[in-house]
This record gives sequence, structure tokens and C-alpha cells, in this order.
Amino acid sequence: MASLSDIGVAAAINILSAVAFFVAFAILRIQPFNDRVYFPKWYLKGLRCSPLRPNAFVSKFVNLDFRSYLRFLNWMPEALRMPEPELIDHAGLDSAVYLRIYLSGLKIFGPITILAFSVMVPVNWTNGSLKHSKFSHSDIDKLSISNVPNGSHRFWTHLVMAYAFTFWTCYVLKREYEIVASMRLHFLASEHRRPDQFTVLVRNVPPDPDESVSELVEHFFMVNHPDHYLTHQVVYNANKLSNLVDEKKKLQNWLDYYQLKYTRNQSQRPTTKTGTLGLWGERMDAIDFYTSKIEKISREIAQEKENTISSSKSVMPASFVSFKTRWGAAVCAQTQQTRNPSVWLTEWAPEPRDVYWANLAIPYVSLSVRRLMVAVAFFFLTFFFMIPIALVQSLANIEGIEKALPFLRPIIEVKAIKSFIQGFLPGIALKIFLLFLPTILMLMSKFEGFISTSTLERRSATRYYLFQFINVFLGSIITGTAFQQLNNFIHQSANEIPKTIGVSIPMKATFFITYIMVDGWAGVAAEILRLKPLIMYHLKNSFLVKTEKDREEAMDPGTLGFNTGEPQIQLYFLLGLVYAVVSPILLPFILVFFGLAYVVYRHQIINVYNQEYESAAAFWPDVHGRIIVALIVSQLLLMGLLSTKEAAQSTPLLITLPVLTIWFHLFCKGRYEPAFLRYPLQEAMMKDTLERAREPNLNLKGFVQAAYIHPVFKGEDDSDSDSATDDVVEEPALVPTKRHSQRSTPLPSKHSGSLS
Amino acid sequence: MASLSDIGVAAAINILSAVAFFVAFAILRIQPFNDRVYFPKWYLKGLRCSPLRPNAFVSKFVNLDFRSYLRFLNWMPEALRMPEPELIDHAGLDSAVYLRIYLSGLKIFGPITILAFSVMVPVNWTNGSLKHSKFSHSDIDKLSISNVPNGSHRFWTHLVMAYAFTFWTCYVLKREYEIVASMRLHFLASEHRRPDQFTVLVRNVPPDPDESVSELVEHFFMVNHPDHYLTHQVVYNANKLSNLVDEKKKLQNWLDYYQLKYTRNQSQRPTTKTGTLGLWGERMDAIDFYTSKIEKISREIAQEKENTISSSKSVMPASFVSFKTRWGAAVCAQTQQTRNPSVWLTEWAPEPRDVYWANLAIPYVSLSVRRLMVAVAFFFLTFFFMIPIALVQSLANIEGIEKALPFLRPIIEVKAIKSFIQGFLPGIALKIFLLFLPTILMLMSKFEGFISTSTLERRSATRYYLFQFINVFLGSIITGTAFQQLNNFIHQSANEIPKTIGVSIPMKATFFITYIMVDGWAGVAAEILRLKPLIMYHLKNSFLVKTEKDREEAMDPGTLGFNTGEPQIQLYFLLGLVYAVVSPILLPFILVFFGLAYVVYRHQIINVYNQEYESAAAFWPDVHGRIIVALIVSQLLLMGLLSTKEAAQSTPLLITLPVLTIWFHLFCKGRYEPAFLRYPLQEAMMKDTLERAREPNLNLKGFVQAAYIHPVFKGEDDSDSDSATDDVVEEPALVPTKRHSQRSTPLPSKHSGSLS
Repeated sequence: MASLSDIGVAAAINILSAVAFFVAFAILRIQPFNDRVYFPKWYLKGLRCSPLRPNAFVSKFVNLDFRSYLRFLNWMPEALRMPEPELIDHAGLDSAVYLRIYLSGLKIFGPITILAFSVMVPVNWTNGSLKHSKFSHSDIDKLSISNVPNGSHRFWTHLVMAYAFTFWTCYVLKREYEIVASMRLHFLASEHRRPDQFTVLVRNVPPDPDESVSELVEHFFMVNHPDHYLTHQVVYNANKLSNLVDEKKKLQNWLDYYQLKYTRNQSQRPTTKTGTLGLWGERMDAIDFYTSKIEKISREIAQEKENTISSSKSVMPASFVSFKTRWGAAVCAQTQQTRNPSVWLTEWAPEPRDVYWANLAIPYVSLSVRRLMVAVAFFFLTFFFMIPIALVQSLANIEGIEKALPFLRPIIEVKAIKSFIQGFLPGIALKIFLLFLPTILMLMSKFEGFISTSTLERRSATRYYLFQFINVFLGSIITGTAFQQLNNFIHQSANEIPKTIGVSIPMKATFFITYIMVDGWAGVAAEILRLKPLIMYHLKNSFLVKTEKDREEAMDPGTLGFNTGEPQIQLYFLLGLVYAVVSPILLPFILVFFGLAYVVYRHQIINVYNQEYESAAAFWPDVHGRIIVALIVSQLLLMGLLSTKEAAQSTPLLITLPVLTIWFHLFCKGRYEPAFLRYPLQEAMMKDTLERAREPNLNLKGFVQAAYIHPVFKGEDDSDSDSATDDVVEEPALVPTKRHSQRSTPLPSKHSGSLS
Repeated sequence: MASLSDIGVAAAINILSAVAFFVAFAILRIQPFNDRVYFPKWYLKGLRCSPLRPNAFVSKFVNLDFRSYLRFLNWMPEALRMPEPELIDHAGLDSAVYLRIYLSGLKIFGPITILAFSVMVPVNWTNGSLKHSKFSHSDIDKLSISNVPNGSHRFWTHLVMAYAFTFWTCYVLKREYEIVASMRLHFLASEHRRPDQFTVLVRNVPPDPDESVSELVEHFFMVNHPDHYLTHQVVYNANKLSNLVDEKKKLQNWLDYYQLKYTRNQSQRPTTKTGTLGLWGERMDAIDFYTSKIEKISREIAQEKENTISSSKSVMPASFVSFKTRWGAAVCAQTQQTRNPSVWLTEWAPEPRDVYWANLAIPYVSLSVRRLMVAVAFFFLTFFFMIPIALVQSLANIEGIEKALPFLRPIIEVKAIKSFIQGFLPGIALKIFLLFLPTILMLMSKFEGFISTSTLERRSATRYYLFQFINVFLGSIITGTAFQQLNNFIHQSANEIPKTIGVSIPMKATFFITYIMVDGWAGVAAEILRLKPLIMYHLKNSFLVKTEKDREEAMDPGTLGFNTGEPQIQLYFLLGLVYAVVSPILLPFILVFFGLAYVVYRHQIINVYNQEYESAAAFWPDVHGRIIVALIVSQLLLMGLLSTKEAAQSTPLLITLPVLTIWFHLFCKGRYEPAFLRYPLQEAMMKDTLERAREPNLNLKGFVQAAYIHPVFKGEDDSDSDSATDDVVEEPALVPTKRHSQRSTPLPSKHSGSLS
């Protein structure tokens, strides 16, 4: 167990590294040639076209204004200066509400820290229980609950504090939920018109022998929503096409690279080999090779595009249906259409840029099977992920390598290399796995068939949180793999489990303090440096960039990464709530993390990140729910801990806490969650009425028509015009029919016809 | 442990008592003076006015046709003869689907019994494990899994059978769910028009300083559902009024009684005392006394009626809103109306006779608190109900009574009475509690604030099932009170619990066989005799009945009693599924129960019960869910049992079963449950269109207007006409406004006005 001075040393190291990151950032960000790495958001928004200080040639690359180096932390107040409404306008509601998670952390743990240090630290400190203990202990432990002797009446303090912390947390959570819900509704009601407000995605259109999907959809909605149906957009299975387009882009990159190479060194035309990655095969002129390849693939793309649009097989049984009013869309999205609840499924259409097109092609019947498979896979991933890693580790030892690749033996036997392999190889397998974990989880979510990026990220976040909870939180407290824990838990009684974990908690305080400093402090500080995008940008800039547009593409602003970021924050909530009563010494470290992260991410959101979608804070119920889970876990563990401390008389009072917390959660769920799932009709009606009064002659059809076309059909490539005309040709063919029959709807004969 | 012959004796006794009941029933039912007890349904439907054989005077009371006594079981084929569609027409969908529960039992357990007896009984029988066992055993146990030696490979049979039984059960369940769902939709789509198809109940209308609730509701729906809103009916808090009406009825009964007494014996006017129950106070002429009392209360009722209607305080923030089309109502019921999800709550209005009026007055804010309180109360009721009973028992012993009431000592000390008290008193406290349990549970549900009788019964059924599961099923297997079990379970590990229960299961087979015979066979046979209604009817008939209408009221047809009946059936499903693999000998007994109960209840439904409401089989998802729970419990217990039998290699295969079952449940939930919660728009539109074509000039407003008036306002008493006119007066005052503004809706000014 670490003493206070050990913690001090660790803190010093981490603070120093954080400061180093900040200094590096301060120096790099004011260099004009890094401007696009650290301020890409402004470029993408078109508010900045070149670094701000256009001086001499040198100062285009290096900042020579030495005064600016001194103010190396001045980005912090800058980041905090932008008011929230402006931030929502600048970066979207998702980002602004994401920052509120950090803010909630500060709001929850600020008062808790003060209370804990003013009440609980003195109560714990003035005991002498550890002095007589035979276990080794440190000053840190003197501040924790371990220092209170068994059966002491002082535990009442901890009990009262547990109540106080719970009530405070719930109060903050309720206020935040309220604020976020009203922010969301305000955002949805805010001025600008968006196609997704009028559009509903209908899936699982049942097959009909007489009519095409498009006709069927039109008839169905004209009959069942006669006064509101406006138009619709069928969905094509363009997965093959979009693969081709991706490949073409890759080839184009290579062509650009060789062309640039040739421009710089005109003496010699670059050559390449025709095989995979240019490693083998015939050597030939690279520019000619790629030009011909691109031509070939362009022809293929044009062909495939034609096939997709003309063939009825590539039309999927799904469609984006647009309504004349938001009211009509809200009604359609929230109701069931037919007797069979698994066909004609309607839901709000995601924002056009949020649609995950590849999954629209998954038939509904396979969804529930996929869900089962992913659930089982995730279970095994969480509890047995160590098995394949252990296998790799056992293969990847010295003897294994020597056996498999005997010719490497002389090299491996060199002492330095040998010790390197022995020291790092086993760890590397684990690191690689953890690095790829978010990707694996994202693949799982994609396989499950969600149709918008935002849902995919939310689902991945849930899984990532679960994984972290089991493997990081529980795994660190009770050392051992998740599977060993599972095995233990099955063989332990229900009231032993919180005890087992509860008892180990105070002992792990120092470990988690170090974890917070490394992952939280230094990690957040590293985030602002953006080392990977910095390197990538400069590499691309020197090898690929020809035009201003290329340079724009070379910027990699990135996104918030909800699927990895949010679970990380939740881990801190969990640690904070669990340790608040047990070892309050942890709290200031968490408070620093939340403060630092808030400033850093606020800066990044303002200057860097470019959100790919806008879900209007649809993730908040998840965030709220996970903090509630953390609260309940903390209460159960405290119960376990206190029962080993012979303070069993407090158990009934402690059982009341989770019951109240669960009830609070249900209350919040009923009160606020609907704002995140449904769109109230009154709001819709108000906005419709307002719009009708303001723009009586609005051509809504023109507005929504092109919104939900698969991105490959409106790509910027040469065959662009074809598809555009194709779409236009197809659409007007439908319109007259619709208009015509709409005037005389609903004809009963037609009605029954489309149903038979 | 009972041997086969013991079981035989018990079976003989129970079969004899069942036969006795049937014979008694056969004799009593063909007596003309019992006709109204055994065929009330036909009287209520107006299909029968007097016993079928109008002969001489004597044969009006006693059946003299001796041949009819010989065919004493001929009601059975009669009960089975009515085809299901006719049954639905005759008794409603609820009753018809209720019978399907028994039918599902037959469908599930029929093939399971055959399979179990042809495969598992030989496998169990041909072992010799019990011969060498030191425990006492019987022939019954030879048929059970206990006879298979530990670690035997024969357990693979049981494993395969568990899979077969699970798949068969799931198959039947899926088919039944499908059939019931389509029956429900067909029923809803069937011809006759009902006011609840057009009506939505809106609750928690927010208070408005400028407008009354009625105006507010009208404006809100005229703005937000402009094309569909038709009319609405405000809800009055008439709880006080309906108490007065109840009291008047009671007084009227007494008056009738004395008047009848006087008519029979004109020599002496009956007298009564004025105090409570006529036990003390001044003696005076009974007819005068009750006449004056009734007059007084009639005045009070008239006064209260006026108060209720005129005072704005008695108008509750709730309203029944009717729409012009089913489509409009379906849309309103399934959508959220405003930003705040806890105001303007809309849901389908229950059938008028299904409305539980008293609960409409409960404000929404208190609902979630009430729910928490009831949850906690139910927890304590289930686990600690033995405590008050034990208290009563300890008080209600000989010494306690002698101490409290010393003057009784001479009587108590008589030996016969003493032994009677000692033997029965402790048991009586428990019996009385169990007798009142359904009432207690119903009170809990009422307190929780559900607004329709059907929901109240469903919720009570869930609680009753839980109570039975814990206290009857688990309580019989692991002897001890529920709280002791809870305590044990908390201190046992998760994998010990199924073991503990699983091991005791085979040993309890004989107990449950006896239970099934007593509760299932003889109990069901007793149901058909209707002893209590029989006695009550004859009592009322001789003391109260003056007119034909009185006689009609004296019939107590009763209802199915979903809240007690369904949990009882579920217990048999649970027993059947749990014992199917363990002790197949139980299965024939369960099969007999299901068969017998099906015939008996079919007869009762056709001839006796008069359902108070029609929920269109809304209870089926509960029934389905509970059978699934029984299935999972049986799988877990089998897992526990096999793991003690050293057949642990089967555990992974057994774990798969509950996972698959849960997945199957989720699949069914997604596929069929919406049919029980929502009303598809296509159906609504179809029915609307059909109706518009058939009856273009339908006056829907007249049809729905009076449907949702509180029953006390349309009672048959003298002040009936007042309230009717009151309502009519109130309604037309609203109509012109509505019609007027509907033509020019939505006026934005009016819109914003009603929102401010």
C-alpha cells in the first residue's frame, strides 16, 4: 500500500506530464502550419481560410511572436468564454449536452467533496483502529473508513453521509435531466426546418406480387394517412456500389500521390508493381496504371449504379416517407400501422447524415436472431476475452517463435531483443485487444442492425461501459479475470458478494488514485495535443495534398467519440460515488479530472471536433441511467462493507437507499424520458401553424425530396449527373399519380385493392 | 412418503367427493326453483323468463321427470357443444379466451404426458438406485428421477426431454398467442360500434386560471387534433354521491324486507330500533322509519348531485374525449400531446362499464408515490404475513382467551370445546387471512390508482400469482415461512438456490398430487355447485323479493374472477412443467384438472357468469408471460437437481434452455404484444371507411355523448331525470362553440391563447 508520499510522487509525475502536454500544445497550436490540425472546425465551417497572421514567408510556418509563448494557458479562458446557446449554435446540441456530463460531475462531486472533507475525514482520522492492526497501512488509510474500529457508533456518520450524497446526487440528476429535456425540446422547436422533422422511416414493407415497393408505400400511406402524406423515397441496397466508390477513392489517392511525386521530380516517371500493395508483379508506369484502373472502376460504378436503380431486387422493403406537416409525421412515427406489428414498422427517420445506410438492407425477421447472437457473443467477450489473449501469449513466447520460425533464432537469441520480447510481447497482445475493443463493440452493434450512427454509438457505449465495469472496476478490486469472478459470484451467496467487494474497496483506493491521474489527468491532457492527427496531417500534406480541397480532406477533425468517451466518464462517476463514503481522499482527484476534462473538451468542441450527426442529446437517458447504476452499486457495496464492520444494525436503513434510488429512477423515466423518445403533438402543431403563417407558399416537397438519397447517388464524382437525372426522372413519374389520386382519396375500391 | 396405495385412497376420496358434487349439481340444477341460480346468464340476456317446463304447481318447484335424474352428466356434452364463435358472441371474448388457458394446458400437457410416460417412466423405473438407498421410498419414487443413480448416463434422456418439453411448450404458446391476438383484432374489428372505439381518456389536464377544465379540454383538442375532435365529457368526483346512493340502496333493502314481512303478516306492523344494525335505541315502526330515512337521503342525494355538477371543485382534471373517427382516437391514444409528459396524458378509454370511477379522482403526481408504497407493502405482505398471524395465534390460545375474557372460562374448560379451540383456532386465523387475501390484493391495486376494473383484476392476479409462487410453491417445497426462505436464499450462493429447491422437488411429488386432487378436482367440482349463491338466492328470494326485477337482482351470477382464477391455473402450469421431467406421475393428475376445469368453466360461462366488463382478452400477455416464467423456473430447478445428481456435464446444455426461452419470450413480445396495447391505424381506417360508406348520416355525437357519464348520474332512481337534463343542458351549450370554431380552425391567436 502506497503512502501519502508515494501518491505525491505519482501526482508530481502525472502533473508534470500533463503540464508538458499543455506546453507542447501551447507551442504547436500557435504555429501557423499546424493551424488546420488545431482549428479544423473553423475551416470546415468556412469561418477561417488560412492561419490568422499572414506575415512573411517564415511566419507562415513558424510563429515568431514570442509573447504568445508566454501565455501558454490562455486557451483555457478562451474555451470557457463562449456561452452555451452560442455553443449549441456552433457545435450542435449533442456536443453542448456532452459537456454537461462533465459539468454534472463537477456539480455532484463539488459539494460532496467539501462535505466529505469537513465531516468524514475528521471522523475517520481521529480513530486509532489501524495502529493496532497487524496489516500494513499508510496515512491514506487513516483517512478512510478502514480506520474506524469494528462496531463503532461512528458508522452512523457514514450512513448519514450516504443518505446525504444520494439525495444530493439525485437532486443534481433530476435538475440536469429537466434542463437537458427542455434544451432538447427547445432545440427541436428552434427555427430551422429539417427534413427529418417531416420524415418517417418505414421498414419491412411486406412483399406484394402486383405492386412495386414504391407503389405499395404510396398507396398504403395515401389510404391510411390521407390528409398528411406528401411523398416518399425508396431505399436502394447500394452496399456494393458504395464499396466500389470507396475503392475508387483509394485508387485516386495513389494516383494523386504518384502525380505529385512526378511533379516534384519530373526527371523520372514513377513506377509501381501490379500486385497487392505494389509488392510483387510486373513493374510498370504508375500514373498510367492507376489512370487505367480508375477508368475501369468508373465504368463499373456507372454500370452498377444503373443496375441498382433499374433492378427491382435492389429496392429494399423500406422507405423514407415524408408528410405535409410535422403533426402528420409525429402521428405516423408514434403509432402502429397494421395488425401485424412486424410489418410497416414506422419510426422517426434519423437525420440524413446520421443514417447508417448499410443496415437498412437487413430484413426485420433476422433482427431478433442477430440480437440474441450479439448478446451471447458479448457475454463471452466480456467474461472469456482473456482466453484467446492467453493463447496468443502462450504462442508468442520465445520458444514458440523459435519453433515456428527457426530462421529467426539467431536474431532472437541476442540478449537485448530477447528481454524485449519476453517483457513486452505478452502485454502487447492485451494492449492490441483493448485498442481494438471499441471497434469490436461497434461491429457488434452494426451487426445487430441499428440504422443510425447515433444509435450505434449509444449501444456500443452501453457495452463498453459494461465491459469496463466488469473488467476494469470489478477486475481491479477483486484481482482475477472476469470469468474467475463470475465463477466466484455463482458460488457465493447473495449477501456475500457485496461483502467480498466491499471489503477490498478501501484497499484499492491508492490504485485508483494512480489510475485517475494516468488515465484522467495525463490522458485528457494528451487528448488536446492530438498527436495522431498532427502526424497524419503533415504526412498527407506532404504526400497527397495538391489542391485546397485536398488539404481540407487531409484535416481529420474527429468527433467526440461518444462510444468510448462517455463510458470513460461513467467510470469516474462510479469511482467517485463508491469512494465518496469509503475513502474521500479520492474525491479531489476526480474533481480535478472533471474540471480539466471540461475545459479541454470544451476547447476541442469549439475548435476541433466536427460531429457527424446531431441526435439532439438523445443519449441523456443512458447517461442518467448509468449514474443511477453507479449510485446503486455504491450503496450495495457500502452495505457489504458495513456488514463486515459489525455495523449490521444499519442494514435496514441501507436497504432503503437502493429502493428509493430505483424509485427515483422510475420517476425520472416517466417524467423526462418521453421527451427523448417522442415528439409531442402540441409542439408539432405549433411549429406547423407558425410555418404556415410565415411561409404560406413553401414548396416542402422540393425540400424533403432529395434529403434521403443514398450518399453514393449524390457523390461528387463524374457520374454524379447521371444519378441525379435518374432520380429526377423517377420522381416526377410518381408525382402525378399521387397528386391525382390524392384528390379523390380514399377510394374504397383502391383501398381494398392495395390491401389484398 | 406416500405409497401408490395411499395415493389411490386419496384419489378415491377426492373422486368420490367430486362425483358427489356433480350428482348434487345434477339434482339441484333440474329443479325449477333453482333455475335462476344455475342459469342466470340466460335470464340476464332476456332469453329465458321462467323455468323451461311450465307444468303443474308442484313441478314449478320440484322436477318430477325421473328420467332426467339418470342423465346426470349430460350437462358436459352440452357445455362442449357451443362453438367458439357463438361463445364469443354469447359471453364475450374475455370468457372465451379465458377458456383457452385451460385448453392450452391440455395442449401443452397432453403430448408431454404421453412422451413422458412412454420414454421417461421406463428409463426411471428400470434403475435400482433406490433399492440400496437408506432413505424410505415408495413405488411413486421409482417412477421419478430419484431412482436414477448419481452420475448415470441415463440423465441424457432427461436432458433431451427437457429440450423437447420446452420446444413443445413454446410452440403451443406461440400458436396460442397468435390465435388470441388475431381473435382480439377480429373482435375489435367486428361489426358493432362501441363508444370506447372513439374515445380517449385524457388525465392530468393542467390547471388554468382563465378557463374551466371543460373549456380547456375543448380548446386543446380543437387546436391539436383539429380535423378529428368531436366532443368530450368531463369527469366529476362523484365518490361522495355514489356512497350516498349505495346507502340509499341498503335502506331500500330494509324497507323492502319490512314491507314484505308486513304483507305476509298483516296483523302486526314490524318494528325496529333506531341504532346501529337495529340493536339498540328507540323502538319504532320499521316501515315509517325507513321511509322517512329514504326520503331524507333522497333529498341529500339530489342536493349532492346538484353540488357536484355545479361546483367547479368536483370537476376533475380528466375528461373523456371523443373523436369523429376511430383513426383520430387511435392517433390521440398512442401519441404524446405536450412537452411535459405528465400532463395531458392520453390513453384508450376503457369500456364504459369497465371504468373504475373512484380512481379517476387521483392526481397523477401521487401515482408514483402510491406505486412505491404498494410495492413495499406487497413485499412485506408476502414475506412477513406470518408475523401478524402468529401474533393472533399466540393471543388466540386458551390461556389468552381466559385472561382477556375471564367470564368465558367455564365454557372453555369443557373438554370438547377446549380441544376444538386448541385444534382449530390457530388454523382459522390463517384461513381467514387467506380468504381475505384476494380482497387485500384488490385493495392494493385500487390504492395504486388504476382506472379500469380489468386492469385492477390483472394487477391483482399478478400479485396473487407471486404470493402463491412464494408461499405455496416454494413454501411447500422448502418447508418454512417465506421470510425464512428469503433469509436462506440471501445467505446461499446463486448456484446453491436451485440445488436446494431442486433436490426437494421429487420428494414433494405426493404432496402436490394430493394438493391437485383437493384443490383442483374437488375444488372445481364444488365450483359448479355454487353453494353460496344458491343459499343467498333462496334467502333473498324469501325475504326481499317482491317484483320480478327484485328477483333478477337477487340472482348473483358472479364473474370469472380473473384475479383469483388465473393465478390458480398458473400454479398448475408451474407444477406441470416443473414435474414433467422430474416425476412424470404428476402429469395425468394435472391433465385431469385441466380437462375437468375446462368443461366446468365452459358450462359456467355459458349458463352462469355475467362478465362485468369486456377487455378483449387484454390479459393474454400476462398469461403467456407467467407460463414462460414457469418454464424458466422448471429449467433452473432441473439444472439444480441434475447438478446434485453428479450430471454436471449437462449444465452448459441446460443453461442454453433459459437463454433460448427468454429470447423466445422477447420475440413473442415484439411480435404479438402490440396487438394488445395498440390499435393499428389501418384497422381503424378500414372500419371508418366501411362505416362512412354504410351509414353516411350517422349521428356519432349522439352515440358517444352519454356513454361516459358517471353511473350515479344515470341511476334508475327518481332523480334520474334531473341529471340527464343537466347533462343535456350542459352539452349543447358547448356544441355550437365547437362547431363554429372548427370551421375556421386553427386560429393561431386562439392557439397561443389557450397555451398561455
